[in-house]
Amino acid sequence: MTSAPLSPGGTIGILGGGQLGRMIALAAAPLGLKVHVYSPDPQSPAFDVAAERTIAAYDDETALALFAESVDVVTYEFENVPAETARLVSAHRPLFPDAHALATTQDRLSEKSFLRDLGLPTPAFAAVDDRASLAAAVGAISRPAVLKTRRFGYDGKGQVLVREGLGLDAALGMMNGQPAILEAFVPFRAEVSVIAARGRDGDFAAYDVVENRHENHILRTSHVPAAIKPETAAAAVAIARKIADAFAYVGVFAVEMFLVDGPTGEKVIVNEIAPRVHNSGHWTIEGAETSQFEQHVRAIAGWPLGSTRTRGAVVMTNLLGAEANGWRELLAEPGVAVHLYGKGEPKPGRKMGHVTRVT
Amino acid sequence: MTSAPLSPGGTIGILGGGQLGRMIALAAAPLGLKVHVYSPDPQSPAFDVAAERTIAAYDDETALALFAESVDVVTYEFENVPAETARLVSAHRPLFPDAHALATTQDRLSEKSFLRDLGLPTPAFAAVDDRASLAAAVGAISRPAVLKTRRFGYDGKGQVLVREGLGLDAALGMMNGQPAILEAFVPFRAEVSVIAARGRDGDFAAYDVVENRHENHILRTSHVPAAIKPETAAAAVAIARKIADAFAYVGVFAVEMFLVDGPTGEKVIVNEIAPRVHNSGHWTIEGAETSQFEQHVRAIAGWPLGSTRTRGAVVMTNLLGAEANGWRELLAEPGVAVHLYGKGEPKPGRKMGHVTRVT
Repeated sequence: MTSAPLSPGGTIGILGGGQLGRMIALAAAPLGLKVHVYSPDPQSPAFDVAAERTIAAYDDETALALFAESVDVVTYEFENVPAETARLVSAHRPLFPDAHALATTQDRLSEKSFLRDLGLPTPAFAAVDDRASLAAAVGAISRPAVLKTRRFGYDGKGQVLVREGLGLDAALGMMNGQPAILEAFVPFRAEVSVIAARGRDGDFAAYDVVENRHENHILRTSHVPAAIKPETAAAAVAIARKIADAFAYVGVFAVEMFLVDGPTGEKVIVNEIAPRVHNSGHWTIEGAETSQFEQHVRAIAGWPLGSTRTRGAVVMTNLLGAEANGWRELLAEPGVAVHLYGKGEPKPGRKMGHVTRVT
Repeated sequence: MTSAPLSPGGTIGILGGGQLGRMIALAAAPLGLKVHVYSPDPQSPAFDVAAERTIAAYDDETALALFAESVDVVTYEFENVPAETARLVSAHRPLFPDAHALATTQDRLSEKSFLRDLGLPTPAFAAVDDRASLAAAVGAISRPAVLKTRRFGYDGKGQVLVREGLGLDAALGMMNGQPAILEAFVPFRAEVSVIAARGRDGDFAAYDVVENRHENHILRTSHVPAAIKPETAAAAVAIARKIADAFAYVGVFAVEMFLVDGPTGEKVIVNEIAPRVHNSGHWTIEGAETSQFEQHVRAIAGWPLGSTRTRGAVVMTNLLGAEANGWRELLAEPGVAVHLYGKGEPKPGRKMGHVTRVT
């Protein structure tokens, strides 16, 4: 379903009520737009800044139809929106990014196949459905390799490193019977990401490449500019553009990549695509002329994309679990922008907020 | 009533639902705070970004009590909050800025008397209650002078310039029988303002002095830095600090001043105090390290004040009436931050939004 660009006063529907939805809502308001947040969780942080809220399950057809009919365009803040939910919503209002981008990226096998078909660099990979296909995959890719569930993995969940000595049955057991994918282990020097946007008119804009440091598979800090060569950065952005154009994508997305040192110098290999605003783009709120959240709103509204120019050297640090309890000291530090997500319990590893320093 | 500082997860109550309340709410959310907006107008722009809303009159004692009991601290976004409303709310929760600052500044005579008692420079003034006191005032101050209602004036409403040839009866008639004040006309070179904050602990922080240009008594543009001498800027900030300390003020406020050229060089004369965030401080959202809205939230929450450092040369331009219809062209201009207030009708002169350019 297509539609005219939004006008100020229009309403964006957001599937999902977490911090990403909350920050989209906070970016929509200064542009004169309302948001309607749909989430099954009554404690959703995004509800606090939404003009309208629906508390309902993602398979509640009636609630989804009412929600879609009440807004001008629908987006989502997590990539595990069920395909059927996307289909139902799309029948009433435009969904950006669309159901095809969503379906492709929420399954690691279809995502990797899509990338390979575009001629983009990915780790070697093979589908794993059972003991026999795992044995064949390990034979083809060799160890070490990473066995991952095809769906619903995030922050390292649903992954196991298949090293020498790990039995195939043990590895397969950790997939809990879910379809999986085996990927070659990439001995990367760094992890980088490209945050970019494509507008309804095909216009494209990328931010400076981000360098990301993880701890226990959870993003710890993002650094801009990344310590990579200009030509490597250009190649990374070109990959993002190729992905966006192939999807006729609308909205902000992230492409996570490995930076590796090869015989011909450094290069990037695509790890995964997130069809949404991304944690490694939070630095743009203070560090770029247009935040990734405003950019996403502009793109899905059918509006001109904003400037992605970086404002300085930027470091974004996630506040995980009890680290958020240090909010008062952080607020007292000059020039630090503090973001707290309004979540209740600071469970270990839970993303409670982040801070950004621009110098 | 005093109270402990807020913690993330706490709630700020805001009396008034206009764009200032909306921008306070948008600044509170990233700090993990909720807002509850109280306004009699169901179409209040601030409702769109508030966790809780109360639609009720400012003299509805029951609604005010329920509202106050539901929050941790109360503030307001317009200075004409009735004294009785302030009293009722203060009985339940701390009100920042307090009822004394509110009462003093919402009456031009008490405001000017307060300034004079502090030894601060103001235009000559005299109370006008009737024909006789107006004649005496004009005799003492001489023409040209400005006759203003003591209360409820804004954007030039409730004012008349008493020139040669304007009869006193005609001037008095324009006050509609309301108590008034006659002020000497100040032949100013420029209008400037100081936006500053005082925390609960007495800490004080001012932004760079702002130069303001008006059209038809409505703010058109704000410019930072103002074209004034450093010692004049320091004197302006010192005035703001004296005012804040005299009130034991908590929150952000604005002091509007005239810049005049005297025999000993340029100096400032205080025009009026606004006990709230202020239109001439909107530039701080992009142009300063901490916005006036976040600073206000920090102050009333009992938190450390943020850095007021300016990020460049900044110009803020109000979008009045139908000017807001040019939003699409403004969005396409690189580096322009567009703010639309979510108001329905673009009536002539109505503040529909603003744009900020930082260079």
